[in-house]
Amino acid sequence: MRYSEQICPRFQHAVEILGKRWVGLILRLLMERPLRFSELAERLEVVGDRMLADRLKELELEGVIERRVYPDMPVRVEYRLTEKGYGLGAVLDAIGQWSEQWVELPEPLAPGATH
Amino acid sequence: MRYSEQICPRFQHAVEILGKRWVGLILRLLMERPLRFSELAERLEVVGDRMLADRLKELELEGVIERRVYPDMPVRVEYRLTEKGYGLGAVLDAIGQWSEQWVELPEPLAPGATH
Repeated sequence: MRYSEQICPRFQHAVEILGKRWVGLILRLLMERPLRFSELAERLEVVGDRMLADRLKELELEGVIERRVYPDMPVRVEYRLTEKGYGLGAVLDAIGQWSEQWVELPEPLAPGATH
Repeated sequence: MRYSEQICPRFQHAVEILGKRWVGLILRLLMERPLRFSELAERLEVVGDRMLADRLKELELEGVIERRVYPDMPVRVEYRLTEKGYGLGAVLDAIGQWSEQWVELPEPLAPGATH
């Protein structure tokens, strides 16, 4: 099998999972502990409920997170990382460290600043 | 600044750089040593020259690689990683390890196999 055929699809798939908007943050939050939908929504603030639900469903289908239903009253639903999901911790750390060191964001203009 | 506004854009930008097709492989090859265009093209096999040229240009604009021209006869052009580019080594390693452990590729059917 050729070099590029062998390595690229796995790598590509991993990057695609991480490349969808908010996935990095969702996983980062779940690294700390399992969370309910409302807890995730509260911490993510700017992310709409519909988009959050879509991302969670996709991550569940990827086997990265797991949705657990507890038969309390009212029913409690929690999202938690699977072993596969926890394995992404090292990836998130590496990307986080690199981007903090190397990615420059456009600075907001200070009041009175001239460009 | 809110959590999601602070962390996400840098992370997102890093993932976008890596998410373009063949970038992982190009960087992996350049981790070993600087290479000429023809050497990269030969090692990447299935990647067309035009796409390779586009990717190299994008990576150069990102400051991840550097294009060096040596005034030999004929002129020699080499692509090499910058410090920012070498910094991606840890990211590539982490993604590579995770995807090797967790990403399943559809297996080609063995001769005579029935599904």
